[in-house]
Amino acid sequence: MTDTTLPPYAPNTFKGLTYHDATAAFADGTDTPRAYLERCLETIAAREPVIKAFAALNEDGARAAADASTERWQAGTPLSAIDGMPIGIKDLLETKDMPTQMGCTAYAGNFPKNDNSAVWALRQAGAVIFAKTVTAELGGNHPGATTNPFDPARTPGGSSSGSAAAVAAGMMPAAIGSQVGGSIIRPAAFCGNFALKPTQGGIHRGERQATSMSTHGPHANAIEDMWQVAIEIASRAGGDPGRRGLMGPPTPPAPIKPERLIVLETEGWTKLDSATINAFDALMENLKKAGITLIRRTDHQAVESLEASIADATHVCGMITAWENRWALRNLIDRHPDGVSERTQATVAKAEAMSPDDYRSLLAAREVARRAHKALSSLADAAITLACPGPAPLWPGDTPGEPLANRPTGDAVFNYPSSMIGAPVVTTPMMAVGGLPVGLQMMGQLHEDARVTAMSRWLVGNITPAAING
Amino acid sequence: MTDTTLPPYAPNTFKGLTYHDATAAFADGTDTPRAYLERCLETIAAREPVIKAFAALNEDGARAAADASTERWQAGTPLSAIDGMPIGIKDLLETKDMPTQMGCTAYAGNFPKNDNSAVWALRQAGAVIFAKTVTAELGGNHPGATTNPFDPARTPGGSSSGSAAAVAAGMMPAAIGSQVGGSIIRPAAFCGNFALKPTQGGIHRGERQATSMSTHGPHANAIEDMWQVAIEIASRAGGDPGRRGLMGPPTPPAPIKPERLIVLETEGWTKLDSATINAFDALMENLKKAGITLIRRTDHQAVESLEASIADATHVCGMITAWENRWALRNLIDRHPDGVSERTQATVAKAEAMSPDDYRSLLAAREVARRAHKALSSLADAAITLACPGPAPLWPGDTPGEPLANRPTGDAVFNYPSSMIGAPVVTTPMMAVGGLPVGLQMMGQLHEDARVTAMSRWLVGNITPAAING
Repeated sequence: MTDTTLPPYAPNTFKGLTYHDATAAFADGTDTPRAYLERCLETIAAREPVIKAFAALNEDGARAAADASTERWQAGTPLSAIDGMPIGIKDLLETKDMPTQMGCTAYAGNFPKNDNSAVWALRQAGAVIFAKTVTAELGGNHPGATTNPFDPARTPGGSSSGSAAAVAAGMMPAAIGSQVGGSIIRPAAFCGNFALKPTQGGIHRGERQATSMSTHGPHANAIEDMWQVAIEIASRAGGDPGRRGLMGPPTPPAPIKPERLIVLETEGWTKLDSATINAFDALMENLKKAGITLIRRTDHQAVESLEASIADATHVCGMITAWENRWALRNLIDRHPDGVSERTQATVAKAEAMSPDDYRSLLAAREVARRAHKALSSLADAAITLACPGPAPLWPGDTPGEPLANRPTGDAVFNYPSSMIGAPVVTTPMMAVGGLPVGLQMMGQLHEDARVTAMSRWLVGNITPAAING
Repeated sequence: MTDTTLPPYAPNTFKGLTYHDATAAFADGTDTPRAYLERCLETIAAREPVIKAFAALNEDGARAAADASTERWQAGTPLSAIDGMPIGIKDLLETKDMPTQMGCTAYAGNFPKNDNSAVWALRQAGAVIFAKTVTAELGGNHPGATTNPFDPARTPGGSSSGSAAAVAAGMMPAAIGSQVGGSIIRPAAFCGNFALKPTQGGIHRGERQATSMSTHGPHANAIEDMWQVAIEIASRAGGDPGRRGLMGPPTPPAPIKPERLIVLETEGWTKLDSATINAFDALMENLKKAGITLIRRTDHQAVESLEASIADATHVCGMITAWENRWALRNLIDRHPDGVSERTQATVAKAEAMSPDDYRSLLAAREVARRAHKALSSLADAAITLACPGPAPLWPGDTPGEPLANRPTGDAVFNYPSSMIGAPVVTTPMMAVGGLPVGLQMMGQLHEDARVTAMSRWLVGNITPAAING
């Protein structure tokens, strides 16, 4: 049932909780990180009972960290621009002061007392590690309890469900998510967040190195906070082993106007509803009015080649990741036969029917997409498309006795291409359909994270969002 | 003190315990895997008190597995060519039926009840998972108690100390090691093993994905067993995430005569003693007599370019790996301040003085070496050099009150180049110096594991080894 007490989402008027514009008051003494945190806790008290964004909260630890940050700001010695920022950590990443239960019964009570490298970096930057945010089970597609902040009858998306919802609800200005298929960008898009999925390997994943196409990335209510969180982590923890990691300016990159943008359809296009198509078309009209050239598959063979190479991205990405997670999941199921959902058991069964040669074929398909994408580098500044296939769908929960619902956290069909390619993506809340957020994503060439952020920032500052009734 | 009861090692007469030539008797009923295992246990009873190769033994589990294998061979339904093979697993890799203590006090009693993916694959192939072999602490350079089977006053090398020693002593026909710098090839060379360090990513590392240049690989007493173990794992578990993994024939590749070989010096050359140089030169003469063309740095600019690119390999590899292990080690030390050796603490301190940009510079240096190596692909069939800088050094242990000894498991200086490049290497026991083994290593282009195995096999079958008095 839709909560009619919530106002409809409007991208041109919605103002989420931000941090980059709060710190001047910490420096001049008119506000403090501790007071900022207490306001977050008030919002949580009001909204968490319905939104259910958190797997754990560490209020005492957060207050102590916020007090220490308050002293640093008052002494004029903040550790970074995000010193004092209350931040949530997706419950897949280890935190030394909170359990890491991964939305999975088999991990109930799991508390390894380690900090993931991104969490370590955030603490070094003075951020207040404050909550573990709900994840779909093991980062897959079996949902947690979190609801969409703009309509509790709908999914917030997943698997970074709690991170997206907590940010959207103003419980915190930023949170860390992670994406293998569409687990940062999709929930961010359903919840009206700004979010960055960095170039593959951009942010060190710590203990979470098992898969070849997962990344950590920030959710925020402003592109400035999004970038700042990402670069504060990367400048301390670096990228994944063997990778250069996220590079770029130490403060949010200045806006850059894109001149030419590829408009990608992807395999998700044919599934779109007309309201979402209308919202996207209206936004594209606004880009054209601003003098930006749009290039589609019908305009250039190289775009058509990329579209062809990603036409099966859902299958390719799903099976690559299933294979890569197979060992860890097999061990987990052997130890805890009843500790893993039917959805995850089904994924393991698919993986265990694969051979190394099947996996090599999928890697080859992925490599074709990577080369087709690289071939576009001189054609346009970036590629854009929907960040999600319309507004967040209703999620009434599984019905006992019925087959499990397909894609209960929404469809990642618009997110697989960038995951497959390993390319950086920024989603911005540039559309609304039926009073719910729909994101626009921009994908750049590898290592162009800062440039994509700069161009997305330009769009946000200069292009009128598109809102369509559902 | 040297054990004078042991005969000197002679590469042309030494015959280690093998398996590929034992299975015909299992098939015709004149021998059984259980009896083979019992012979291994007798050897262990005789030699383990001095050699100390094992961190754990699972005799009951091994007997049950050998009995099951015996039934399969007698029914004519072995699971693979290594069904029934007793095999040791380096104590860095998790095994569900033995602890995984990693030679580290902080991991004392660690027993995660998981199987590393390579262990899982070996069980699927019917191998008898029999022992955890001693590793230098955490795969680094702080040694365990294992002694060299040819002289207990000397190191077996490390970090795969127990795997190399157990195979050399005939306690088992094969064991799994792992290498980040020189941790398979060096101990294998010091112990007269055959060993393969696969192309980077060749064998799925399971839970051990933290570093960008570590691989698992087999130690054996015959090149046939070496290949068979590797391919049985890879054909089931595949390679690392995102990698194609080890490919090649399902049985040992037939010998191929190399026509042209690059002779690499590497930065280790100037440290060699004259006896080792004499042994290597004598072996090179034997290659030339067989009609093989040898190409050195003075013969071709491209070889000189590769030598230049790897001139600092010890530093580059050491610092890359230190950085990559930093997060896990920082967490470990925070949890167990007294649980990690001074040597490992010193490595962490070096890593924590690095920045992401320092790491990027090292990756760039590594990339230069990779390209210099790739540029040689049409010049020769492979590159050869010493697998270790002479025979295993004496290791009397650290002296209380004195500074810690440098490189107590020997110097990996001849091993860093292939680790840095990610190239496949096979070591063969083709030399002896002073009655101790010295290995010859052959390095191929990426994914040429089978070809390097085939060419190494030809050398072993056709070239007289070189033995020099020390």
